[in-house]
Amino acid sequence: MKVSKKKTEPILGLGTPITANFTGKAWLQNLSGQPEYECNVYNVTFAPGTRNYWHSHTIGQILLCTEGTGYYQEKGKPAQRLQPGDVVNIPANTVHWHGAAPDSRFTHIGITPRVSENKTEWIGEVTDEEYSEAVR
Amino acid sequence: MKVSKKKTEPILGLGTPITANFTGKAWLQNLSGQPEYECNVYNVTFAPGTRNYWHSHTIGQILLCTEGTGYYQEKGKPAQRLQPGDVVNIPANTVHWHGAAPDSRFTHIGITPRVSENKTEWIGEVTDEEYSEAVR
Repeated sequence: MKVSKKKTEPILGLGTPITANFTGKAWLQNLSGQPEYECNVYNVTFAPGTRNYWHSHTIGQILLCTEGTGYYQEKGKPAQRLQPGDVVNIPANTVHWHGAAPDSRFTHIGITPRVSENKTEWIGEVTDEEYSEAVR
Repeated sequence: MKVSKKKTEPILGLGTPITANFTGKAWLQNLSGQPEYECNVYNVTFAPGTRNYWHSHTIGQILLCTEGTGYYQEKGKPAQRLQPGDVVNIPANTVHWHGAAPDSRFTHIGITPRVSENKTEWIGEVTDEEYSEAVR
């Protein structure tokens, strides 16, 4: 029996503070990471205004938006506003960021497939100017 | 930009009726299935009393319970009651079923990792006697 009683509702437990590669406050809660699955599943909660750095994944990543309002932006494209129920399939080797709206907390489930091969490259901060431009 | 506006809330669209290997009414809604991810993500909604057949997966499967009350049972073990927020890591090659409680609709997100290698074997119906015994 492999049922774990971790809650996907972040209000019941936001998880562990994320300390690197984010601007602002964010929390990580692992939901599943069995080695044989080669697939990690986790909640990320962003405080209002928080976003992660520009980064890319060599395979890609799936986001399932579950709470609040957020944004996803690929380099050189307009940001897209995210609401609960939205699904983002982040393409391989594509520089992007995701995070909360200025006035809303935001939570998504993240799914990282093919974890052994799927490397993340962190590039640098989304500046206040870039963020303001993206979410206006 | 790969944002799709599929909703994870089943109330907004239950998806396609499932016609095989289930007892009762159930619906499938694909959320993500990019070939390069080797990882399928989908909602399954079970009407009250509905369950799938006894089956197993050669790699395993992840369930994220999102709505209603359900059950998960491995062959020869007691069933475990599931509520929103519960996570089930189904082990490889383990005969099991999942479904709704008799008096509640149940929805979970399913995540199938390593899809090319991850074969499902369907064994047979969970009889009314087996189901009643499991959920009493």
